[in-house]
Amino acid sequence: MDAKTDVKIVEVGPRDGLQNEKQHVPTVIKAELAQRLLDAGFPNVEVASFVSPKWVPQMADGADVLKALKKPEYATLSALVPNLKGLEAALQTRTEEIVIFTAASEAFAQKNINCSIDESIARFDPVVKLAREKGLRIRASISCCMGCPYQGEVRIADVMKVIDKLAHLSVDEYDIADTIGVGTAGHAKQLMKTIGQTVDLRRIAGHFHDTYGQAIANIMASLDAGVRIFHSSVAGLGGCPYAKGATGNVASEDLLYLMDGLGLKTGIDTAAVVQTGHWISEQLGRPTASRAGRALYQKACA
Amino acid sequence: MDAKTDVKIVEVGPRDGLQNEKQHVPTVIKAELAQRLLDAGFPNVEVASFVSPKWVPQMADGADVLKALKKPEYATLSALVPNLKGLEAALQTRTEEIVIFTAASEAFAQKNINCSIDESIARFDPVVKLAREKGLRIRASISCCMGCPYQGEVRIADVMKVIDKLAHLSVDEYDIADTIGVGTAGHAKQLMKTIGQTVDLRRIAGHFHDTYGQAIANIMASLDAGVRIFHSSVAGLGGCPYAKGATGNVASEDLLYLMDGLGLKTGIDTAAVVQTGHWISEQLGRPTASRAGRALYQKACA
Repeated sequence: MDAKTDVKIVEVGPRDGLQNEKQHVPTVIKAELAQRLLDAGFPNVEVASFVSPKWVPQMADGADVLKALKKPEYATLSALVPNLKGLEAALQTRTEEIVIFTAASEAFAQKNINCSIDESIARFDPVVKLAREKGLRIRASISCCMGCPYQGEVRIADVMKVIDKLAHLSVDEYDIADTIGVGTAGHAKQLMKTIGQTVDLRRIAGHFHDTYGQAIANIMASLDAGVRIFHSSVAGLGGCPYAKGATGNVASEDLLYLMDGLGLKTGIDTAAVVQTGHWISEQLGRPTASRAGRALYQKACA
Repeated sequence: MDAKTDVKIVEVGPRDGLQNEKQHVPTVIKAELAQRLLDAGFPNVEVASFVSPKWVPQMADGADVLKALKKPEYATLSALVPNLKGLEAALQTRTEEIVIFTAASEAFAQKNINCSIDESIARFDPVVKLAREKGLRIRASISCCMGCPYQGEVRIADVMKVIDKLAHLSVDEYDIADTIGVGTAGHAKQLMKTIGQTVDLRRIAGHFHDTYGQAIANIMASLDAGVRIFHSSVAGLGGCPYAKGATGNVASEDLLYLMDGLGLKTGIDTAAVVQTGHWISEQLGRPTASRAGRALYQKACA
C-alpha cells in the first residue's frame, strides 16, 4: 500500500464486473473503462481474465485491452489466471499481478473449477513458480468464504483450512470473497479477526458482494477488524449469477463514499469514478447499481 | 420494547414510504399493506399522517386506513401529527402513538415546516399536553441529523441542542433521522454515542435512509453504540425527494437480514416481509428497492 493512503481499493469492474455481462462489450469500451479507472487513481485495476474464451467469451480480448492502456506509475494491472496456459498468455501482456482462485466451499470448487479444493491448490504450484520467476505479484482469491450457493453454510474454520493449505505458496495477498453476498457484519468481523490471528491483515483483501445489501456494513466490520484492502466495482458492475436480477460486487462509488466519510485516504478521485460509473452504465444501457453513484451524479448535475 | 426481542423495528413504509409516491395509492392497498406488516410481526407500524390533505394528498385517507386494520395485541399504530388540528383528527381514530417532527437544521425547518426550530418546538407544547391526557405515546422525530439538503453540514452539537430543547416535553422516543442518507458509519457511531451521554439510548431510534448505500452500515454502527430501535420501510418504499431517482428509507428486508444474521431477535417474520415487499412492488408497478428482498424472493421461488 502507498504510504500516502490509508486503504487500498482494488477496482474489479473491468474483469469481475464485465465478465457477468450477457451482451458483448466492445474492446474499445473495455479499454476506455479501465483507462478511466486508472486515471481516477485506483492503485490496482483488474483488467483481464486469461481463462479459456470457450468458458468466458466476454473476456477473450484481454490482451488487446491490456495493450491499449496507458498505465500511470502508481497503478498495478491484474489479470485472472486459471492455469499455466493462462499464465503464459498473461506473460505476453503487461499483466503485473495474477489472480489465482480457489474456494472455501468444496461444493463450489467442484461445480465452478471442476476439481476439489486440494486439486485446485496443487495446480497453483507451477503457476506460482513461473509467475515468481517472471517477477509477477500474486493474489490468491478464495471464493465463498461466508456462504455457498450449493452447500449453504461455510464455516470460518473452512476458510482457515484453505488459507493454511495455501501458506506454502507465499502469495502476496489473499482475497477473502463473499461471492454470493450472504454474509452479515458480525460474521465478517469474526472472520477477519480469526484470519488476523494467522495472517498479517496487510495481506488480506475483503471482496464483498452487495446481493443482500450488506456489503458496506461488512466492509466497515472488516475495517474495524484491521483489514485495509477492499475490492469494488464501478457502478456495481457484475450481477450475481446465482440470483437472477440481484446485484453483484459492491459499487466503488458506495465504498469510496464510505471511505471519504470516514476520512480515510484512498488516493482516488470519487467524482471521476462517479462520472465513469454514469458513462459505463450508459454504454451498457441500464441504470447504475450504485446508490452513492446515482445520488452523487444527480448532485453534480444540479 | 418487548422482553422477547433484542431490537425494535418500526415499519414506516405505509406512511413515510407511500407519502413519497407520486401515483395515488388506493385506500384498500394502503390498508392491506399495513395489515400484512402488522401480521408479519412488526411491533410498531406508522400507518397514517394527519397533515393537511392539501399538502400531502396521498395521506388524506389515513382515518380510513386505520379503521380497516385488525391490530394484533403486540403492535402499536403510529401516525404523524403536525399540530393540534392533526392531533384532533388522530384522536378520532385508533392512533396509539403520535409522531411530532422538527429538524436539526434551521434551513430545513424553514423550508419544510415554514418556521424556525424553536417555533416548531413551541407548537409541540399543546399537542403533547393533549396527547398525554388522552394516553397516547409520543415520538419526536428530528430530521437532518447528519446533513441537510439546503445548508449541507449538520453538526452533532446541533442535534444535541434540539434534543435539549425537547427535553421538557418528556417524549417517549426520539427519532434520529438521516433524512437524506448522507451520513457514514463513523459519524453515525459518534452521533449516537454523544446522544447516549445525555439520553437513555432505549429512547433513541435510528432512522436511516439508503440514498448513498450507507444505511445498513450506519445501523450497524448505531447498534455498536447501543441503539436498539430502528426504522425501515418494506421494499425500501419512499424515494428521496431531494435526489431524483435515488432511494429513500432503508429497506426492511435488508435490515431484517442484518438482524437475523447477527442473531438479534426482532419478533418479525422476514419471509412474510419479503412476500409483502414483492406484493407492494407489484401493486406500484416497479422493482423493489430492497436488495435482500430481491435475493430472498428469488431464493423462495427457486
